Amino acid sequence: MKKILNSSIGFLIIALTFASCNNGDSSKSNSALSSNAAEKVYVAPGQHDEFYAFISGGFSGQLSVYGLPSGRLFKVIPVFSQDAEKAYGYNEETSPMLNTSHGFIPWDDSHHPDISQTNGELDGRYIYINANNTPRIAKIDLTTFETTEIIEIPNSAGNHSSSFVTENTEYVVAGTRFSVPIPQKDMSIKDYKGNFKGALSFLKVNPDNGEMSIKFQILMPGFNYDLSHPGRGKSHGWFFFTTYNTEEANSLLEVNASQNDKDFIAAINWKKIEEYVNNGGGTKMPTNYAHNVYSDETHSATSTMIKEVLTINPIDVPGAVFLLPTPKSPHGCDVDPTGEYIVGNGKLSANLTVHSFTKMQDAIANKKFDGDAYGIPILKFEDVLAGSVEQPGLGPLHTEFDGKGNAYTTFFISSEVVKWKLGTWEVIDRKPTYYSVGHLMIPGGNSAKPFGKYVVAMNKITKDRYLPTGPEVTQSAQLYDISGDKMELLLDFPTIGEPHYAAGCPASLIEGNSKKLYKLAENKHPYAAKSDADTKVVRNGKEVHIQMTMIRSHFSPDNIEGIKVGDKVYFHVTNLEQDYDVPHGIAMIGANTSELLIMPGQTETFIWEPKQVGVWPFYCTDFCSALHQEMQGYIRVSPASSNLELSWSLGE
Amino acid sequence: MKKILNSSIGFLIIALTFASCNNGDSSKSNSALSSNAAEKVYVAPGQHDEFYAFISGGFSGQLSVYGLPSGRLFKVIPVFSQDAEKAYGYNEETSPMLNTSHGFIPWDDSHHPDISQTNGELDGRYIYINANNTPRIAKIDLTTFETTEIIEIPNSAGNHSSSFVTENTEYVVAGTRFSVPIPQKDMSIKDYKGNFKGALSFLKVNPDNGEMSIKFQILMPGFNYDLSHPGRGKSHGWFFFTTYNTEEANSLLEVNASQNDKDFIAAINWKKIEEYVNNGGGTKMPTNYAHNVYSDETHSATSTMIKEVLTINPIDVPGAVFLLPTPKSPHGCDVDPTGEYIVGNGKLSANLTVHSFTKMQDAIANKKFDGDAYGIPILKFEDVLAGSVEQPGLGPLHTEFDGKGNAYTTFFISSEVVKWKLGTWEVIDRKPTYYSVGHLMIPGGNSAKPFGKYVVAMNKITKDRYLPTGPEVTQSAQLYDISGDKMELLLDFPTIGEPHYAAGCPASLIEGNSKKLYKLAENKHPYAAKSDADTKVVRNGKEVHIQMTMIRSHFSPDNIEGIKVGDKVYFHVTNLEQDYDVPHGIAMIGANTSELLIMPGQTETFIWEPKQVGVWPFYCTDFCSALHQEMQGYIRVSPASSNLELSWSLGE
Repeated sequence: MKKILNSSIGFLIIALTFASCNNGDSSKSNSALSSNAAEKVYVAPGQHDEFYAFISGGFSGQLSVYGLPSGRLFKVIPVFSQDAEKAYGYNEETSPMLNTSHGFIPWDDSHHPDISQTNGELDGRYIYINANNTPRIAKIDLTTFETTEIIEIPNSAGNHSSSFVTENTEYVVAGTRFSVPIPQKDMSIKDYKGNFKGALSFLKVNPDNGEMSIKFQILMPGFNYDLSHPGRGKSHGWFFFTTYNTEEANSLLEVNASQNDKDFIAAINWKKIEEYVNNGGGTKMPTNYAHNVYSDETHSATSTMIKEVLTINPIDVPGAVFLLPTPKSPHGCDVDPTGEYIVGNGKLSANLTVHSFTKMQDAIANKKFDGDAYGIPILKFEDVLAGSVEQPGLGPLHTEFDGKGNAYTTFFISSEVVKWKLGTWEVIDRKPTYYSVGHLMIPGGNSAKPFGKYVVAMNKITKDRYLPTGPEVTQSAQLYDISGDKMELLLDFPTIGEPHYAAGCPASLIEGNSKKLYKLAENKHPYAAKSDADTKVVRNGKEVHIQMTMIRSHFSPDNIEGIKVGDKVYFHVTNLEQDYDVPHGIAMIGANTSELLIMPGQTETFIWEPKQVGVWPFYCTDFCSALHQEMQGYIRVSPASSNLELSWSLGE
Repeated sequence: MKKILNSSIGFLIIALTFASCNNGDSSKSNSALSSNAAEKVYVAPGQHDEFYAFISGGFSGQLSVYGLPSGRLFKVIPVFSQDAEKAYGYNEETSPMLNTSHGFIPWDDSHHPDISQTNGELDGRYIYINANNTPRIAKIDLTTFETTEIIEIPNSAGNHSSSFVTENTEYVVAGTRFSVPIPQKDMSIKDYKGNFKGALSFLKVNPDNGEMSIKFQILMPGFNYDLSHPGRGKSHGWFFFTTYNTEEANSLLEVNASQNDKDFIAAINWKKIEEYVNNGGGTKMPTNYAHNVYSDETHSATSTMIKEVLTINPIDVPGAVFLLPTPKSPHGCDVDPTGEYIVGNGKLSANLTVHSFTKMQDAIANKKFDGDAYGIPILKFEDVLAGSVEQPGLGPLHTEFDGKGNAYTTFFISSEVVKWKLGTWEVIDRKPTYYSVGHLMIPGGNSAKPFGKYVVAMNKITKDRYLPTGPEVTQSAQLYDISGDKMELLLDFPTIGEPHYAAGCPASLIEGNSKKLYKLAENKHPYAAKSDADTKVVRNGKEVHIQMTMIRSHFSPDNIEGIKVGDKVYFHVTNLEQDYDVPHGIAMIGANTSELLIMPGQTETFIWEPKQVGVWPFYCTDFCSALHQEMQGYIRVSPASSNLELSWSLGE
């Protein structure tokens, strides 16, 4: 480009260059803007995304890991639903994770992931997520990206206002959506009002390993508890929950729970209740709930039933619980990075209500109450109001923050994200969503330190946004650049399940801690075979235990005889590999279970109950090497009456 | 741009233009090439992809629907594995789809989708896909994108050389990978050689509705049958299968099945066998296999056990089966768009062998045989060889075609895609893959009319290509532009399960036929409630059947009393909506099953067996409207001894 061009040639080249830049692919009508957006979301092959986005699967029951800005899906972490691909909830090791007081449950509805925090900032150690349907909270370890704990929540139903963490991860909360009789009893549904209660549970977190235990449950009036967020900074020590159905209706709620002009945000001073409990307060109630813990050492989960829970009557702890009137059936309950503002997203309200923590404290100090609900003081709306965003949109649901003094609220009915300014309450920008946005996520948006570069809108309807896939179409997220004054829509990306809610953080918080394999030497599975010398087949009555190894490209043993019809055959299989990204799989024809997909150094178990005599093959299900198709074996099944002794071999 | 620029300004603008075009986002080091790639794969919000890619999930057991060039995942179609998100394999309607002669099986390993054809070209009506582990073939209807048929394959094991279609979808084939005793019997594994057999099954397809029935099984020698493809054009009427383990080893196959210098491609003249069968040929063998069919009218599947299969001894049909020597443990068996060339991808071979159909016909006509294997004539390698691609790479697996005279072969060990020319066998281009590519896909690549714009490489290892997710990392596909002489890598995109194999086609073939909803008036489910007037709760001993409706935003009924501990409660729920993209879900606390996710006009059923007295809620699991959180109900459970009569209501 050093030679001097004359002006006409220069002009020609400029024109061509523009053409090539803006219309690089003539088959698509890319504008200059979309070309720019293309570059902003493109992560070239081999490059890494800048952020992790952990998007719940909603009715899938799982948690999905995406990269931003590319919108690419890296992993679906099985949490509350069985996953036949990974043997989660099928193999002997993980099935106890899905045990509950109702027995084994293969599914749930996972909603609100929240990343652990230290000093109000994301620390990237764990993610907690709630199961709505059969109330539970799970912990996912962000070194292995596996679910390592699930605890059931008793006295709860539709565990929705969960699973948010306090600013040092002192607690994870679990709030009931539905009120129920506590304890449960046979009573008429029509007697709901005044008799049903709503439990808000506070789960203490062990700072060393993230493990949860239910410290106490507050038995609140029989409202519906929808969402919650912790106080932080000046409001640390408090937790805020939205309520709806303060009418306490029990049928046709779309009409009967939309009567009151205002419902409440319940403000809970959990430090005060913790102190009360530590001093012996509260009432122990008999109950029954499961606590399931997975060990990376034994590669196995155990399930323990717990028989007692500590309940708190809020009127026994004066100064601990207050109600803030909030229009109208509020959904999201969001606290800004400073801890001063509490946003109540009144989904049937014409405006957006923001409460002031400082004003709330003043009103409490001055005992300026406006009556009570079942003994819980109600503060005056005007006394706690920081301000309102007027006519912001229709159907507000959820607000996040960019750390630069701006808030972003989703509006389901008017299908948009609206950016507004904290303190002045003025609307700065609005962008449509496609279509009917629910929640949204800014990485770190629920912390003292958001990373305000992108916002992800999670939409409920897509209709024609993608190539059609029959009556069932994908749900979808949209990525907006929020680094400038105005939001810019960059990308539509489809999701697994319902993209209900999300948590995100810079990749740098997590990627360095990600485990590459399990050390074989540290494997404490009781049936591990750590070398071919450990392999064996042992009969114990009708139970047969096979301790088998897998390595590129064979099983040891790969020929087994002496199995009989009616046996219960346990395949305990250890992957001897000690390299990154060399899983092996195993499956047996006719087994009434899933494959095993076993990571290097790990042991897993499936059961096979052969029903027919014959010679039946098994094989490796993960394309592991150039000789993967040779990684196979046979098992001979003899009649139940056979006297054939067990024998096994490899390569003979 | 009409004003005249002097040359220096022109130069400056050119430079700036290049800068802005190539480095739009200074935070990423995009080269001119990657910027161009970004535009090539970017599908702007609201725009549609040009191609559908149907990528099997491998060990996930499912089939995933992606768009190209964006690499976005639109749907995971449940086929062989339970899916709690969609209730597939959990609800009463779809559970019969997973019935087999071994009982209910919740998982399989799905490998090779193939789109139906008419006159050798893709017609976009159905996709067929195989289950390897417990041998089955499934049909997916491309108007609903749902699995509508699964047929079990008896006498088969590791159903791998499947499920490819002939050029008018006359047949879908299913070839065994493992040989087994036929019929199964209690015998020593060591007696494999000469005693085990490999069944190649031909499934007749009903041209009206795509339904399959096993027409005949050819009982071949006890080799492993790896992959297959149909003849087309001049070779229509033939089918070709690769074999390995012609050594007939039964243990440590990585060594013992890699001894022979050449294995075979088995050439099957299915028209000749069809004629033989239509004239009464073949032997009926008692057996037992499941045929499962889903009806869009009843929204339900039925499973029928079939007790007989017609077997063919290949030596009984002279001129029907021949063996083509092919180096060495060939994997893919691919036929070019003209039908003349049959490529044997010898995975341990130093070169790539291409057979000529014309030469094969000549050799057969001249009876130029080189001995036989168990009575099946072996042709001479030299007599059927069209040519070899010399030193193309290491570990060839699979070849597809662009319809412009070029072939593209994957090499697992040298981790690359190699483009070469049919007829001259010269290598034209090679591009690395990241890492260890298995199969590849060009839309229409297995047909007379490929769409040679993109090739998708499906890789087995990713290691560090994406943000890490613990020991288990995603598998991945890569998209290359093949519209020019040289291939250009555009995009890495992660996948669900193992991206084992794929079929693709222009979106225009399918999108216009995609169904938007199920008409309520046509719903023939025996427990459908087509309006609130049809709703009821009926007790039959300990069985209670609830016929319930759902519509924005309530269930009818939503309060039910009179259920007792020990009852088996059937929730038959009908979605009354008749708009596109308005599913509702339903879940009941403590149910030992998944949610239901019900499309407009559809009825589905789950079972709840309450174990505890109390008042228990249910709710809508799909965010369906602004009052979705109000869409809920309660069920009262009384003791088993209670005399409370059934009653139900809405809004009272």
